[in-house]
This record gives sequence, C-alpha cells and structure tokens, in this order.
Amino acid sequence: MKALLIIDMQVGSFKPETPRFDAEALVQRMNALSNDFRNSGDAVIFIQHDGTKENSYLPGTSDWNILRTLIRHPDDIVIAKTANDSFYKTDLETVLKHNDITDLFITGCATDFCVNATVHSALIRDYNIFVVKDCHTTANRTHLSAEKVIHYHNWLWENMTPTNGKIELVSSKDLLKK
Amino acid sequence: MKALLIIDMQVGSFKPETPRFDAEALVQRMNALSNDFRNSGDAVIFIQHDGTKENSYLPGTSDWNILRTLIRHPDDIVIAKTANDSFYKTDLETVLKHNDITDLFITGCATDFCVNATVHSALIRDYNIFVVKDCHTTANRTHLSAEKVIHYHNWLWENMTPTNGKIELVSSKDLLKK
Repeated sequence: MKALLIIDMQVGSFKPETPRFDAEALVQRMNALSNDFRNSGDAVIFIQHDGTKENSYLPGTSDWNILRTLIRHPDDIVIAKTANDSFYKTDLETVLKHNDITDLFITGCATDFCVNATVHSALIRDYNIFVVKDCHTTANRTHLSAEKVIHYHNWLWENMTPTNGKIELVSSKDLLKK
Repeated sequence: MKALLIIDMQVGSFKPETPRFDAEALVQRMNALSNDFRNSGDAVIFIQHDGTKENSYLPGTSDWNILRTLIRHPDDIVIAKTANDSFYKTDLETVLKHNDITDLFITGCATDFCVNATVHSALIRDYNIFVVKDCHTTANRTHLSAEKVIHYHNWLWENMTPTNGKIELVSSKDLLKK
C-alpha cells in the first residue's frame, strides 16, 4: 500500500515575510495528487509541526493551522510532530505498519529541513520513497535561491545510496497520468 | 563520553577527477583533532564505506582504503557501512552504547551525503551532536561550489530543531584550545 505525506504545510510558513517558491501552484498540484490518492483508496497523511513558545507553530495558534487552501477529507490522517523528522516520537510508523503502507510519496515544506529529515529517516526505515519533485518548497537562503535549493535537493535524493528501500524522484504530472 | 567520527575519508573520494574542497588542510586538522581525542582517552572511530560492484569503494580495492595521510592508531575503531547513514545496519550504535558515548563529534566526506545522513540519524537517536564545521568536505556540484555546499550545510545543521540530543557547530580550533 502507498501513502501521500504532506509535511508542515502550515500558515506560519507561508506568510509574506517568508515567501515560499511557487506556493500557490504547489498547493494546486498537491490537491490534485491528494484527490487522486483518495480516489484510489490510498492514505493521505498530513504531518503538522507542534512548535514551542521559543519558535512558532504553537498548537492552537493561527500559524499552526494547516493551509486552508489544501483540500482535506475526514478520512485523512493528521500526525503531530515536534522535530524535523516526521518519525521522531510520533505515531507515523505505527500508522504506516497498521495500514501495510510500504511506499511513501513525500511532499511538503521545507525542502531542506523537515522534508529532507523525513526522507533520510524513511530511507533508513526501509520504506520505498518517491519524492514528488514538484511538490515541495522552501524559502530563499543566504546566497542560494529557494528554486536552487529545491533543484539541489532533488539531485541529492536521486543520488543517495538505496537501503532495503529504494528512493526515486517522480513528478506530480507522471503520477496523475497513471 | 565522547567520540570523534571520521566518515568515508577513502582514497576513491580524493582523486584528481573529484577534487574535494581544501582536502590537504582538512586532513591536517583531522589529524590534530584525532590526536587530541586519543590523548584525552576518547574514542576515534573511522567509518568506512563498503561499496558494491555497481559503484566504487569495493572492499579490498585501492579506492576503498582510508587515506594514508590520516593518522591511525591500533586502538581506533573502524566500522564498515553500506548506506549513506553510518548507523544503518552497522555496529556503530552498539559500539557507542558499549563505551557510554553520548557526544559525537562528526567529520568526514561528503558533507551533503554521508556526513549529512549521519547527522540526521544521530540526531533522531538522541546523541548530542557537534559537527566540526571545518572538518568535512565535498566536491563541486552543478551550479554550486563545494565551499558553498559546506557553508550551506553548516547553516542547515545549526538551524535544525534539537531532539532530546542537541546539535551544535564547533571549529577544530576551538576544540583544540579546550
């Protein structure tokens, strides 16, 4: 079985002061994908970062909410996390095992923090990973544009050494064709 | 207890066709550090990548050998790995637990592959991580110099969310002063 992971697409990350590359079109691609997963009976899992007072994303605050533009369904699963890695002290692995999910389609924000940490963690847990290369985003970094960070990470993931699980890059377009 | 991790400093990664940023001076800094760790009775652990026929670093080949310019001592520990992450199906965690090591000083090659994967894995295993910011290296990537990749990763690691373990950046100079 497969699942779509949508990581940290929360209000606090998509404010005017931290613009994310191609955010509006990204949300549309994610909605098309999640719709497709639901129609096929596959799981859609939202990962939501629970922050602390020291940073943002404090549960219950406006910043903590998942973007309202992302389509959600009552059957979707929501998993809270506190670290970059979506597996760290969360219910994710239990949920995946309970649903016999071996193939993870990874999307979300930010490319170079929580998405990357989750890719690394999923790989050493032997899941088959499909990073959706046009469905993750980040902000500009010092001397490095968000777009460059995204391309660079797609290249990094494509060149990682597989474990017992494989790691591949796919596009939302190709997934929707299948 | 603490340990110095020296990841994948193997001949195959330091050939003229894949020049690594600042490699000669890096080896000198690593030797000064490993000398310091040994003198304090702390562990020095070399991680050595065992490749497959499809890529390089096949055990027993010249490329697989650890650089001869790196000082080694009979008491140093050598751990073989097959994935990017030094913990994946290796003896590393057993060795660390057996020696009550909680603090990992991470160095090696490549910054954006095995060093990064090991940092991520060590963090979710709750080790205290000290990345030695001037003791890891990589090669130039498409549209991104090795030096830029190194600086960018130092920034990424410094800004990761801590787990029960902390993550800090240190310089070899500061460590040698202590």
